[in-house]
Amino acid sequence: MDRLIEKIVEMQNPTVAGLDPKLAFVPEFIKDKCFKKYGKTLEGAAQALLEFNKALIDELCDIVPAVKPQAAYYEMYGWQGVKALCETIEYAKSKGMYVITDGKRNDIGTTMEAYATAHLGTTDVDGESIEAFGADALTVNGYLGSDGINPLLKICEEKDKSIFVLVKTSNPSSGELQDKEIDGKSVYETMGNMCENWGSGLVGKSGYSSVGAVVGATYPEMLGELREKLPHTFFLVPGYGAQGGGANDVKYAFDKNGIGAVINSSRGIMCAWTKEDGTDERDFAKAARREAERMRDDIKSVVGEMKL
Amino acid sequence: MDRLIEKIVEMQNPTVAGLDPKLAFVPEFIKDKCFKKYGKTLEGAAQALLEFNKALIDELCDIVPAVKPQAAYYEMYGWQGVKALCETIEYAKSKGMYVITDGKRNDIGTTMEAYATAHLGTTDVDGESIEAFGADALTVNGYLGSDGINPLLKICEEKDKSIFVLVKTSNPSSGELQDKEIDGKSVYETMGNMCENWGSGLVGKSGYSSVGAVVGATYPEMLGELREKLPHTFFLVPGYGAQGGGANDVKYAFDKNGIGAVINSSRGIMCAWTKEDGTDERDFAKAARREAERMRDDIKSVVGEMKL
Repeated sequence: MDRLIEKIVEMQNPTVAGLDPKLAFVPEFIKDKCFKKYGKTLEGAAQALLEFNKALIDELCDIVPAVKPQAAYYEMYGWQGVKALCETIEYAKSKGMYVITDGKRNDIGTTMEAYATAHLGTTDVDGESIEAFGADALTVNGYLGSDGINPLLKICEEKDKSIFVLVKTSNPSSGELQDKEIDGKSVYETMGNMCENWGSGLVGKSGYSSVGAVVGATYPEMLGELREKLPHTFFLVPGYGAQGGGANDVKYAFDKNGIGAVINSSRGIMCAWTKEDGTDERDFAKAARREAERMRDDIKSVVGEMKL
Repeated sequence: MDRLIEKIVEMQNPTVAGLDPKLAFVPEFIKDKCFKKYGKTLEGAAQALLEFNKALIDELCDIVPAVKPQAAYYEMYGWQGVKALCETIEYAKSKGMYVITDGKRNDIGTTMEAYATAHLGTTDVDGESIEAFGADALTVNGYLGSDGINPLLKICEEKDKSIFVLVKTSNPSSGELQDKEIDGKSVYETMGNMCENWGSGLVGKSGYSSVGAVVGATYPEMLGELREKLPHTFFLVPGYGAQGGGANDVKYAFDKNGIGAVINSSRGIMCAWTKEDGTDERDFAKAARREAERMRDDIKSVVGEMKL
């Protein structure tokens, strides 16, 4: 996690830009060009997503430390979309950005090892070692317990990668299971404690481990409660902006040094041009940059300086 | 779920063949051929997986009702592997098999809709409606509550598809969270009850709904408990064979008509040739068929005739 935290401190910006490129979010001129070349096909759609992402990355890479592509929006466009995910990750890394693949993957034993290899490691092809997706971090779901998380820890250690385990998600129905009590503790706190345990051997010089947690901005009091109870667990916080969370909600995710969390915005940044009066669709990336700066300043005004 | 159950009754075989094709499981002559043509690349590996799968499907399609490709083993070989997944699904469907993509996907709202569209629905590309992966069923994780499941129910209804929600998984550490008690009920029972609720509007003429549950063969007493408590929830049961479960363990998953569950075997079938004395690797698919027949007869000997 140190690599991400260092970038956050360097840019004084604790945010991540979500790349969830539904075709409906992509400006017409990009779609027109790609459909003309590849037809109204999955290949054409995937090419449009990739061009959209690349333009956003070009505009954001010097002010935003990380991107978070959401796997679902690529799978939706078939293997062609998954190829665009792969190329998006490669491009963002080439621009120095930290890449969190939001896949919420989960399984056990050798199957979870396969996911770990796929998204964070290198695949062995008869002696050749090849990066399949090559992200820096992956979101995962801990419902299956340690058998689902342990296979990731080795790769986190060996390759300096991270995971974010779902703890308290930002959606309205997250409480149906997550808020229920187990032995006097909520399910989300139980899962949070499991994160502290899983990460205990992987604490970096920042004080945070390679095992982070997803905690939604929409439940600020739980965010504060967990920040206190999970001192080595770095938070990935969805729910800012479109889902209703603001700087005053997310401030609880940070420690006294202004670190401890990275706040995600997806639609807010990607679709910023649609919210500005008179902005042409061709200026979508510049509008995204303006929104990313606004969001950075908004959060910084509450959190203060970030220092290691 | 009715389509799967009808196939099970027709073939008198309540099993599903897991297609988890690690390269290490693929016979050398297939790998040699593919590496010669495509090099030791992700493309070469993916091509080897696809040939392996197709040969297995050819041998199994008239005696086994369903296949369950595990997404992790395809993602491990990059987008090229995901393309092989797509082509495997298409091929299995062309041979009349029911396809369960084991992806354990989970997210909320529009993102979960994207997964539903990707794996079970059709993607809209500027007016063109295209199937991205086109499976018949998808495994999912319900940790996020109804916001993560509701987006799937519409597609299940409209397109006659199914989901299987993780309830009690087959791994040793599954109890870390799943066995804990909430208001006097275990987490797995709570999740099981949620499955009954989610499926309540989608009960077919078999009496089972489109919302199934994953319940491991390695916990037979819980399997029996859940069979009784969840009368409309069809079970996908992993853990037979390689993970230690036998026919006497899985029998609890079935109702008095011999239906109610489909039992998975992955390595047991895929790698059957390595367990037989003197079987040449070129006969891997015939050995897989022999093991599938043995498994079918083993389970049938305990469960009896399956009838609707």
